[in-house]
Amino acid sequence: MAGWDARGVVFTSGASEANALALNGLLRPDRPLRLVSAVEHPSVLAWGDLFIPVDGEGQVDLAALDRLFEAHGPHVGLVSVMAANNETGVLQPIAAIAARCAHHGLPLHCDASQLPGRLPVDLPVDLLTLSSHKMGGPRGAGALLLRPARMAGLVARIRGGPQERGLRGGTENVPAIAGMGEAARLAGRTDPGPRDQLEAACKRLGGRILGEGAPRLPNTTAVLFDQPGDLIVMGLDLEGVCASTGSACASGAAEPSHVLAAMGLQGVPVRFSFGADATDPAEAIAALERVLARMEVA
Amino acid sequence: MAGWDARGVVFTSGASEANALALNGLLRPDRPLRLVSAVEHPSVLAWGDLFIPVDGEGQVDLAALDRLFEAHGPHVGLVSVMAANNETGVLQPIAAIAARCAHHGLPLHCDASQLPGRLPVDLPVDLLTLSSHKMGGPRGAGALLLRPARMAGLVARIRGGPQERGLRGGTENVPAIAGMGEAARLAGRTDPGPRDQLEAACKRLGGRILGEGAPRLPNTTAVLFDQPGDLIVMGLDLEGVCASTGSACASGAAEPSHVLAAMGLQGVPVRFSFGADATDPAEAIAALERVLARMEVA
Repeated sequence: MAGWDARGVVFTSGASEANALALNGLLRPDRPLRLVSAVEHPSVLAWGDLFIPVDGEGQVDLAALDRLFEAHGPHVGLVSVMAANNETGVLQPIAAIAARCAHHGLPLHCDASQLPGRLPVDLPVDLLTLSSHKMGGPRGAGALLLRPARMAGLVARIRGGPQERGLRGGTENVPAIAGMGEAARLAGRTDPGPRDQLEAACKRLGGRILGEGAPRLPNTTAVLFDQPGDLIVMGLDLEGVCASTGSACASGAAEPSHVLAAMGLQGVPVRFSFGADATDPAEAIAALERVLARMEVA
Repeated sequence: MAGWDARGVVFTSGASEANALALNGLLRPDRPLRLVSAVEHPSVLAWGDLFIPVDGEGQVDLAALDRLFEAHGPHVGLVSVMAANNETGVLQPIAAIAARCAHHGLPLHCDASQLPGRLPVDLPVDLLTLSSHKMGGPRGAGALLLRPARMAGLVARIRGGPQERGLRGGTENVPAIAGMGEAARLAGRTDPGPRDQLEAACKRLGGRILGEGAPRLPNTTAVLFDQPGDLIVMGLDLEGVCASTGSACASGAAEPSHVLAAMGLQGVPVRFSFGADATDPAEAIAALERVLARMEVA
């Protein structure tokens, strides 16, 4: 990854472990508070102490972040904001957040699991989480990238042998790590064309694109229809089209999405995600038309 | 594994993570002390607060354990003693330790990574660590087995989605877990015959078997010779025989073994480990004879 030193890489079993390491490994008793965005992945959200609200487009509210710094500044030890949301694809204003963290002398962590293969990973942060299988590599590997200045203070969460410079014990999962390396080498950009075509069709069919006004990943879209998203997803499944009502790790979950709630929205969206090799969404669009037509008749 | 309920299995990325979860996940602020044996694997040893000494054979000193309970009992929250030592193969008196823990109402954790494939895993403990690759499965999987009564109190170390009943977030590494399951299914007993033949030869050549008076794994032996073990291992390597001076994760390490030190021994041993399919050690014995003969001439 551009701008990162190989000496600052700690390989883990995945992004969730890398996030747990980042959110706990740098914390000091006199600055125990972790500021995380309200739309983080559960593996970051679960460690948050204070939550930065987002606007209706799903982007971090920078004025609210400033107020959190004002109110709690001396007790804050870390800020963590994801690069791109896993449910909506909305990109966060990382540069603006990084400038604020630098001003307060605070480390900024960023879960960038959603970025490789979709957009270049070039972020001015101190700690960065990557996931192997999210970029097309095998399961079982992830990484926390650290700026050299942050290495010294990091406390290992899994101790043991001298692996990963003592920052992560345990026999290295070399096949998974090698696969992750190859996936990173192959990761490029995703063409937003097919996603744009699908979104145009969704809007024609009455859908509302979540975060449409914000910069987003080129491969992900979440759409609110008047019809319930879970029924649409079931109908699409019968048509051979894979969609979900939320993030992959919460699919099938009955609870409402914390991401939508943070955006001030209600309802169950339909989330579509395109692989890097996706081309023509015509079949998915036709299936969606059939599913919605059947629901109107019923 | 016999006697364990599938509902009490938490799959992890490996034994080191399972140990970190066991050693931290049950601890309460009013009982913060963890008693661990002085010969534990580094992934347990690193979390120990008080260390249970071992005798000259490498087995836990039960009288010393009783004294530790007497002195610190009310502040102890967990006891952790491995099933079999990874450097010497010495088995620990788990039943006697379990009786003491039950008497004090304390959970007993046991890192049993070395057992599957060598001996049956049937231990009266509350928490049990297993490793996939140590039993011949792929890297990237391990497990913490818990008695149902201990499940409720366990605090996750990697948070995230609802995986593993919320006790271990992160996308499950299904291929590695499936491989671990198959390895566990195939794991039997190792015939101690080849190991015994090698040990007889080692003694004939002046070697001292570590923990010879204690029950041990059927596949592992660590031998102290008058000649330095690191030079013997190098000589064996040139002969095409793989041995090590300590545990696999510390091979090449220049530091003395904490296991030998705890047994009151000095020197660098030669550690041999037999696969379940090993048969005749004649070639290894002949190579060892040649290596030692050359060292005498030199």
